[in-house]
Amino acid sequence: MNYDSIFDKAIDRLHAEGRYRVFIDILRNKGAYPNARCFHGHNGPKPITVWCSNDYLAMGQHPKVIGAMEEALHDVGAGSGGTRNIGGNTHYHVQLEDELADLHGKDAALLFTSGYVSNDATLSTLAKLLPGCLIFSDELNHASMIAGIRNSGCEKRVFRHNDMAHLEELLAAEDPATPKVIAFESVYSMDGDVAPIHEICDLADEYNALTYIDEVHAVGMYGPRGGGISERDEAADRIDIIEGTLGKAFGVMGGYIAADKRVVDCIRSYAPGFIFTTSLSPALVAGVLASVRHLKNHSEEREAQQENAATLKRILTDAGLPVMPSTTHIVPLMVGDPVRAKKISDILLAEYGVYVQPINFPTVPRGTERLRFTPGPAHTEAMMRELVDALVEIWDRLEMELRQAA
Amino acid sequence: MNYDSIFDKAIDRLHAEGRYRVFIDILRNKGAYPNARCFHGHNGPKPITVWCSNDYLAMGQHPKVIGAMEEALHDVGAGSGGTRNIGGNTHYHVQLEDELADLHGKDAALLFTSGYVSNDATLSTLAKLLPGCLIFSDELNHASMIAGIRNSGCEKRVFRHNDMAHLEELLAAEDPATPKVIAFESVYSMDGDVAPIHEICDLADEYNALTYIDEVHAVGMYGPRGGGISERDEAADRIDIIEGTLGKAFGVMGGYIAADKRVVDCIRSYAPGFIFTTSLSPALVAGVLASVRHLKNHSEEREAQQENAATLKRILTDAGLPVMPSTTHIVPLMVGDPVRAKKISDILLAEYGVYVQPINFPTVPRGTERLRFTPGPAHTEAMMRELVDALVEIWDRLEMELRQAA
Ligand SMILES: Cc1ncc(COP(=O)(O)O)c(C=O)c1O
Ligand SMILES: Cc1ncc(COP(=O)(O)O)c(C=O)c1O
Repeated sequence: MNYDSIFDKAIDRLHAEGRYRVFIDILRNKGAYPNARCFHGHNGPKPITVWCSNDYLAMGQHPKVIGAMEEALHDVGAGSGGTRNIGGNTHYHVQLEDELADLHGKDAALLFTSGYVSNDATLSTLAKLLPGCLIFSDELNHASMIAGIRNSGCEKRVFRHNDMAHLEELLAAEDPATPKVIAFESVYSMDGDVAPIHEICDLADEYNALTYIDEVHAVGMYGPRGGGISERDEAADRIDIIEGTLGKAFGVMGGYIAADKRVVDCIRSYAPGFIFTTSLSPALVAGVLASVRHLKNHSEEREAQQENAATLKRILTDAGLPVMPSTTHIVPLMVGDPVRAKKISDILLAEYGVYVQPINFPTVPRGTERLRFTPGPAHTEAMMRELVDALVEIWDRLEMELRQAA
Repeated sequence: MNYDSIFDKAIDRLHAEGRYRVFIDILRNKGAYPNARCFHGHNGPKPITVWCSNDYLAMGQHPKVIGAMEEALHDVGAGSGGTRNIGGNTHYHVQLEDELADLHGKDAALLFTSGYVSNDATLSTLAKLLPGCLIFSDELNHASMIAGIRNSGCEKRVFRHNDMAHLEELLAAEDPATPKVIAFESVYSMDGDVAPIHEICDLADEYNALTYIDEVHAVGMYGPRGGGISERDEAADRIDIIEGTLGKAFGVMGGYIAADKRVVDCIRSYAPGFIFTTSLSPALVAGVLASVRHLKNHSEEREAQQENAATLKRILTDAGLPVMPSTTHIVPLMVGDPVRAKKISDILLAEYGVYVQPINFPTVPRGTERLRFTPGPAHTEAMMRELVDALVEIWDRLEMELRQAA
């Protein structure tokens, strides 16, 4: 039994497939986002433009957020010092849960240390509480939902992405007395398409299933108050459990669910991933409170983001670059090969000061490797033109084909 | 299928067993710790003394930590905006990993969003990488280790707490060619006892097993530089993977492992709980950096904590109160009944302004419910005398027996 050689082989496999990951070492420049400094190479930090951040609305730089965090740091300190039950329940946590419940029009909400943990802990505990539960899961669901479903130990049925006929077929095949949960996302973050929430809820009503939606890539950005696609589509009251992150459009870190009081109370009381961990730092919670409150009452950031996403899609399409169909703020460009995707990303960083990470397996299926751009309110049209010119030059250099200009 | 009634019953079970948890709503007063404000009841916040925080050394209030977090907030902003691979790898993360690797004398370290996630993600991934792996787990291991072991899907053997003969018996019964991991803690946080690290490593050597230690309740507090019990006992180089938290003695939030470069590279590359989540906020990472660096070079906090823990144990014992045998900074008082433990805690908070949470199932086995005190460097002897007087009065009021004074 030689442990070292097993570990070495596991790493070698990644190199052989061209998907060994090297993390780019950066620091963003607060106040000047999307500008940042890159510590890659050995000539000291150099300026770059970030095109792949999930701090979608730059709320992580917002003066209200920074101010609130600073105030909390000085009022109560850095960490919470305990689990929610043992010393780690601060007044900020209580207030933020109220605010998030209100955002989604639910009775209650519950904070977790991340969106990953909220999906993992909630889905695994929910399925354990419902005897013989079956989970119906969209095939493109995020790794954290898949982890929660697997860790619940219950059976699952995977339906083809957004395919209502297939979902219905699977639901109809089961005993009506079996507890069922339909788990899906609102915005699918690697493609930028959206789930048909009302149709899913119609099926849930018909087959008496609970509904669980991951709104991680939508909260803060859709709906008049940033309640996500379920708010935009006026479907929030039809969803049993809404899950979100505090680390993307809200700009900080953490995750949550919002639901009926009894569901929240069950997860709060039975989920090890919630119970046995130091609660979110009060400084983070204070920052999120400011962010959620701001985005409930302001639409400028959301509108600027949508405009810039539309502009970037148009310029890319006009240049003949292979933009994938997206109905949201996410702008993916298909490459279809991991080595090439990495090469384009490397050239962009080294020669053009443009930072966009290649997206490869297991984040997306093999053969659909891509670049994924997330224009925010602060990306200018000049930045977009520079980006597109660079891409066209690189496409040419690598002898990749451009589509006929529209 | 009535979902509501299932959820209601799950909650009713907790009420019936007297272990439904109500979170105490507090805010600590930075600079005046262990003082805090309690928002319980409806007469506005009232002052309390916190006796159950895991911010063991009050580093969450340290000016160096607060200053570093503030600087990072102003330099780069609130959240990291991405996973470690996609935009969320800041220079702070890289520096902290170097610092933690050095703290434990290892090649490399890896950050996670919490200590819970570091245990869950590392153990589940490790066991999946080693074909047919068996995990040997101390019966008192923390819920997060148990989650990681269960989620790995591999087989486990549970050995009686700190019982080397039993561990050896279990190891000897298995095929020498089977990959094996021994997983244990250094300080067991609910009892305050310590694992015999060298003896475990001797067995690991003999039976060719990897060793995994959770030092969550020891890092920052033991060893000349705060490297934990493995540093104090000069055993760090015998352990394959050392796991710790950034949310207890280091005073902030997050978790990590330190190990050989190839092990860290494998977990970094294969663990979904590491890969698919927004990385720690750079402000938190900057705070931890300051905290780790301070505790590497200063022993005042550790020494004051040890002195105060010894004093509290002595005063409690002198008063005839049932202190459990603990060789560490943790001071548990046995009650043995969940309803009584909660009652004592309620009286302490309402009448004496003393906050100590009752510890009940599933955190400790049923019938061993207890109060758990964590004196830190800032608890004064006057506070201790007040606490012990209050306990003696309550013991008397509830007609519980005191031991013969020693
Ligand atoms: C769809 C989806 N759900 C959940 C998560 C996890 O959220 P967090 O980053 O807060 O852990 C992510 C990404 O990180 C995601 O893309
Ligand atoms: C032994 C042990 N390991 C791990 C953890 C989890 O660490 P964290 O609070 O950073 O999630 C805890 C407590 O929270 C613990 O007591």
